[in-house]
Parts: sequence; structure tokens; C-alpha cells
Amino acid sequence: MSIVKPSTLPGFMELLPQDQILFNEIRDIIKENYEKHGFLPIDTPVIEKSEVLLAKGGGETEKQIYRFEKGSTDMSLRFDLTVPLARYTVEHFNELSFPFKRYQIGKVYRGEKAQKGRFREFYQCDIDTIGNGELSLVNDAEIPVVIFHTFKDLGFSDFTIHINNRKILKGFFSSLNIEDSTDALRAVDKLEKIGEEAVIEELVASGIDEESAKKIIEFIKIDGSVDEVIESLRDLSIEDEIFKTGLSEITEVIGYIRDFGIDEESYKIDLKIARGLDYYTGTVYETTLDKYPEIGSVCSGGRYDNLASNYTDMVLPGVGISIGLSRLFYQLNEAKIIESENKSLFDLLIIPMDDCISEGIKLVSELREKKVRVDIYTEFAKLKKKFKFADQTAVPYVIVVGENEIKNRAYSLKNMKSGEQVEITFDELVEKFKG
Amino acid sequence: MSIVKPSTLPGFMELLPQDQILFNEIRDIIKENYEKHGFLPIDTPVIEKSEVLLAKGGGETEKQIYRFEKGSTDMSLRFDLTVPLARYTVEHFNELSFPFKRYQIGKVYRGEKAQKGRFREFYQCDIDTIGNGELSLVNDAEIPVVIFHTFKDLGFSDFTIHINNRKILKGFFSSLNIEDSTDALRAVDKLEKIGEEAVIEELVASGIDEESAKKIIEFIKIDGSVDEVIESLRDLSIEDEIFKTGLSEITEVIGYIRDFGIDEESYKIDLKIARGLDYYTGTVYETTLDKYPEIGSVCSGGRYDNLASNYTDMVLPGVGISIGLSRLFYQLNEAKIIESENKSLFDLLIIPMDDCISEGIKLVSELREKKVRVDIYTEFAKLKKKFKFADQTAVPYVIVVGENEIKNRAYSLKNMKSGEQVEITFDELVEKFKG
Repeated sequence: MSIVKPSTLPGFMELLPQDQILFNEIRDIIKENYEKHGFLPIDTPVIEKSEVLLAKGGGETEKQIYRFEKGSTDMSLRFDLTVPLARYTVEHFNELSFPFKRYQIGKVYRGEKAQKGRFREFYQCDIDTIGNGELSLVNDAEIPVVIFHTFKDLGFSDFTIHINNRKILKGFFSSLNIEDSTDALRAVDKLEKIGEEAVIEELVASGIDEESAKKIIEFIKIDGSVDEVIESLRDLSIEDEIFKTGLSEITEVIGYIRDFGIDEESYKIDLKIARGLDYYTGTVYETTLDKYPEIGSVCSGGRYDNLASNYTDMVLPGVGISIGLSRLFYQLNEAKIIESENKSLFDLLIIPMDDCISEGIKLVSELREKKVRVDIYTEFAKLKKKFKFADQTAVPYVIVVGENEIKNRAYSLKNMKSGEQVEITFDELVEKFKG
Repeated sequence: MSIVKPSTLPGFMELLPQDQILFNEIRDIIKENYEKHGFLPIDTPVIEKSEVLLAKGGGETEKQIYRFEKGSTDMSLRFDLTVPLARYTVEHFNELSFPFKRYQIGKVYRGEKAQKGRFREFYQCDIDTIGNGELSLVNDAEIPVVIFHTFKDLGFSDFTIHINNRKILKGFFSSLNIEDSTDALRAVDKLEKIGEEAVIEELVASGIDEESAKKIIEFIKIDGSVDEVIESLRDLSIEDEIFKTGLSEITEVIGYIRDFGIDEESYKIDLKIARGLDYYTGTVYETTLDKYPEIGSVCSGGRYDNLASNYTDMVLPGVGISIGLSRLFYQLNEAKIIESENKSLFDLLIIPMDDCISEGIKLVSELREKKVRVDIYTEFAKLKKKFKFADQTAVPYVIVVGENEIKNRAYSLKNMKSGEQVEITFDELVEKFKG
């Protein structure tokens, strides 16, 4: 038989077990927070009919799609979790309760140019709240609350949720007689990346006069506490109706966020946040880690007027965010913000002498019964090899089980990091390690 | 814009949120048991290089593969988790510790003929222990121990883990001068399905004389307690070396299972279990639910001599099992063995009156802080509509928050099933519902 060299496709993340344990811990914290805030799980297929998935059509996305035929069926791998949500919501409309709060954590596929930190298969962790016809602004307020608790639970102390409302920008542009704000929004979104001068250039290139371009820069740089920014916006006395709606919406949303009671320092109104996608129509969010601005937004989203216009005439407004988990994990790992080196599923490893394997098994079973996170090395081997296994698996404590230990039901507990050994009884073991 | 009818591909399972909650509970119980017993998580890509995935080649499987090209790359969706495990183990060999105990829970893809209860995308939940060169029989014993705890935790009281050893069958066939046992094993495997007469016919058709065929039937029908079966096998005094190895192996495995200490009634030696796959070389397992024999085996697997001969010259023996979760879930649901009707992520729903939404948000936040599984209905609507939402979501308790409740911090807790209402304070609420 000929041997095939085993390898994965480029751009596909695959982790070693220790990294995977860490990855799963992060995924579980996200999941728990999503559930705690009332978002229900769904799990749509990875493969969808191409005509359904690509109903919107066109654009950069379509080139990146994994699309193929099997039999006479044209199918594609999902490239995000939002289009499947739209399809799901309409297909199961009569069986769902609205507002429909759902989360989905799953892999999506984009055949992008492979580069460092960009993956062709990656996890997205999405929450969205979908209304039937209408949806109150309380839901816009709940999104940053979920982000707040999630990132707190992930162990981050310093992060900022940037909140804006597209209507404020759109209305402001309109007050400057800029009616098609698409180009302007896109330029504004780049301020952090390319700087003031370049944004002004881009605005002017899109047909906006230089004076207005400078006013835009001045406007989006309005800064201060949440109340100060709202005050500044009021003081502008802009009479544009869309602007006024946006200001009223963000004021209401901030009020509800305060009712939810998260730390005031964790969020701010940031008029620079526009979100490139023309999809968003109201509140928008980005989240940055204060100490690691170079990572960019780790969690973004916003409010949209209509989720599923490709599938139904019904109006389904929604609001949601997404955490791009694979990319986030890669970045946190690269920046050594997280550390998988000492990750083990176990606190304790039992190493029985070759003639004491049965007794070792009995001990490990008794300990597992008591909820101790323990494993056993059951191969026949020299003690040195057995300890090498313990080293490799990063288990923090080891017990060797020989005849004496069995007779006395007393053990020598070795701390693998310090090398220290202490005598310990079964009951003390349970006390020390029980979950 | 034209409207596309939203639908999923045939053969792709998609659940409503209540069913998904139940599905996830089952998946989590499986995961917890796998981890508790020392199996480490891995998460291989859904897409693999076709040359790697199909290195073994041929057979029915290849026709079912979702295979396609993107750019000039020939790729395929995984059809099981075993081939990716083989690829993973060899690719990361130097970074793994052996025995390498891994679990993987993920979706796999087979373009089978769509039929009731058969899915083209389905979850497998696999554990395997892989040795480097050799692997002790303790690992064969641990597999049924994991199955036992998993199915106990899933709430099944009556199930049977059927254990056999292919060497016993092979050796016995050899003692009857049947050297190529492939056909015979395949026939034996069908006894439960097609009955004695048909198996004898099939054996005879494969070239075995009728007397031997009858001896085979007699042999595989040997029954009794574990010790009785071992005794009966010894009493046969068969001198074939493979038979003797098999008998010695199963005796040793049973001994270790007893060390692990699971209920004796939960497992038996069943000489009828052969497992169709020629892949298995030693211990084999099937698991049946005693009250639902029609469901067949819910968890099967076995020992194999060499995991990855397509990828390496190294010898990597292993033992493992797989739970076909999507199919199992479907069957349990169809047979009404499990019930999703009352599944809710929440114990309690807060329904604020339209002018008390802020106060409702404060209450829900305080309760979540205290680990109460609670959600809030935040739309402006008539009370009737709000209660309809509560009904639909199957939440067991509801509190309406109006001015009086806010003033007195006392609530009327409504049991949605019985309609009963009791007065309750905040502290009592926390006491009753805290997680």
C-alpha cells in the first residue's frame, strides 16, 4: 500500500489538544452567556441550497463560496450564520415565538486568500433578536450587556464597547446635503486605520467639498462621557429628522443599558463607528480590547430593518452581534494574552506500578465517583516513561500506586511543577480535588 | 426583488429551539462523560484533501462523498471522524502523548439515499485511544465503562453492552477449517435481523458445509453470565491459537471492567456480535436499549490493530466507539423516549407592564446576578400577547411587573401549567430559582 502524506488544507485551523481545551473553554463561556441572556440555540446545516444561500447574490462573497453539485443539486457551504438565520426564521416562522432570540455557534466557510490569522473555515458565535414587524430598542441595549458579561467572564478587565447609530451619521450627512451616504460611511469607518488626512481625501474624492469633509471629521471626533456626547449632539441643534431619530434612539438605548446595570466605563458612544455593511440601519457596535488596539474589533454588529427580504414580504427587524472566535483565538494566542501551556482536563494522574494496574483502576474509579478530575496511565512500562507521559500532558499532580499505597490507602502526592511530595489519604485527596 | 422559497436540502436535520435544547443536553452529557474519562478534545476541519481522506479508496463510501474542486484543489467533506483521526495522529505525532485518548463530536457527511431517520449531515460522537506500537487491554475495558456512565447519565436504566472478540470467532472458524472468515463474520452479524435459517443458508452459500454452519449457530448462541460464557468457551477445549488468544483477551478485559466497577447487569459477552467492518481485530462492542430492541445498536466500535497504515509505517493500534447522535436523537424522539415539549432555558419570565419596562430590566438583571435562569419580554404589547409568548416558550413560571410590584418588591408568581399564583418576595424568588 502506498503512503499518502497526511496534511490539512491551507487556511484550515487545527489545534493540538491543549489548545483545543482552551478554545473550548472560551467557546463555552460565550455559549453560557448567550444562554443566560435568553438566546435559544439553533444549529442549521453547513450545506444549503445555492439558490437559497445566494438569493441576495453578487459581490465579493460569491467568489469566496464553496459551491458544488452533487447529483443534480447545486449546493454551497454557508459563509456566515446570518443568511441561514434569515432562511430559518422564515421557514419555521409559524413555529417560533417573537421576539425570536437565537444564538448559533458554528463553522462557516470562505475561500479567502490564505494569510496569517485569516481562516477559510472558522467559528462564528452569533446572537440575534428578531422581531415580527417591530422590535423595541430594549433589544439594542441588551446586546452590549451580553458582550459585557461575556468578555468579563473571559477574563478581560479592560475593553470598550463602542456604540453608535447609523441614523446619526446619515442625518448629519444629510444636513450637509450629502444624500447618498454610502461612500462617506465607508470613509469614516477607516479613520482609525488611515488617519484624518486620508479620510478627508477619500471624502473629497467621493464628491464631498472640503469644508464638509472637515466638518465630518470634527463631528465624528466628538468625544467624552456618554452624557457629554449626547449633550454635544443636542447642542448642534441639527434639524434633520433622521438625525433627530438617531439621537433619540441612542439616548433611549443608553437609558436601557443603564437599567441593565453594566459598568459605565465599559461602553461609550463613538461616532467614528459606521460598520462598512450597508445592511445596518440603526445602532451599531464594535468592541475593542483597551490594551490591544492592534487586534481591532473583537465583536461587532448592529440593528437592521429587515432580516429576510429575500425570502418573505414580512418585515423582520433584528439586532445582533458576532464574535469571530477562530480569529480571536488565534490573535489572543499570538499576542500571548491567553496561554494553553498548562491546560489539562485533569488535576491528577494515577500511575500504577505494572503489577498494581487493577488497584490503580479501582482507585481512579473511586475518585471519579467523587467527582475528582483524574486519569490513569495503564500501559505496562518503566516508571520513567510513565512520568514522561505525565510531563507531556501537563497534569499538575501525580500519584504512583504500588503495593504499599494499596495496603495503607495512603499516597504520596507529587506536585509536577515544584517536585514537592506530600503524604495524603484517600479522603484528603477527595477533599483537595473534588470538583 | 424576487422572493426565493426558503428550504433546507433533503436529508439535513434541522431542529426547532426546544428540540435543539434537548439535543444539546444529550450532546453535553456525552461530552462530559468523554472528558471525565480522560479523552481530550480535538476538532478537525470538515473539509479535507481528497487524496488524504480517500487514501484507502474504493467501496461504497466513495460514492457517498461530497467531493468538489475549488481553484485547482480537490477536496472532500469528511464522512466519519476516524479517517481524520488517523490523519491527525500521524500529522501531529511528535506533539502528542501516547496513549492518545481523544474524543471528537462533530458533523460528518454522506450523500446516502435520503430516507426516514437517515441523514446526510449527522453528528458522530467518537472516543478512541491510540497506542504507539502497543496498547494495553485496559483500554478495551475502559470503553464499555464510558458507555455505561454515559447512558446512565442520559437517564437509561436498562441497556446492555454486548462485548465480543473477533479473534474468538476467527479462531473458532479456523478450528472448523474456515480460513477466510470475512463472509462468515458478515453472516453471523445478521442473526438478530434475519434469523437462524437464513444465516445457515448464507453460510452454506459462502461455501461452508451445513454441519459446520450448524456448529457456528450453536456456538454463537452460547449464553449466560459473563463467567458462564467464559467457562463454556474454555470447556470447548479448542486448540486454535487465535481462539485461545481471543479467549484470554476477553477474560482479561472482563477482569479490568470489574476493576472499574460498573453494574454487572449492564454488559454481557455476546458471541453473535461480529461488526461488519473488517477493520476490527479484537474486542468489539454494540449497545442496545433493552426496552427498545428495534432501535438496534446505539453505540458500537472495537479494537483495531493499526489506525493509520495509509499515512505511516508506524503501527498505531487503537480501540474506540462512536455514538451516531443525530440518528439516535431522531429515534428516541420518534419513539417518544425523550420529550422536548417542556424544554426551556428559563425557569422564569418577567413580563413588565408597558410603563414598567425599565424596572423589569432592573429586576431581571438582579435575578441573573443571583444565577436565576430568567428572561424578560420587552416589547410594548397588550398583556394577552405577552402571555401568549410565555405560553409558546414553555417557560414554567411568570411574573408580571407593574407599579405595585415595584413599590412593594413583592411579586405574584404564576405557575404556567397549573395557573396557580403565589405571593413571593425577591429573596424568596432567588431562593426558589437560583441555579
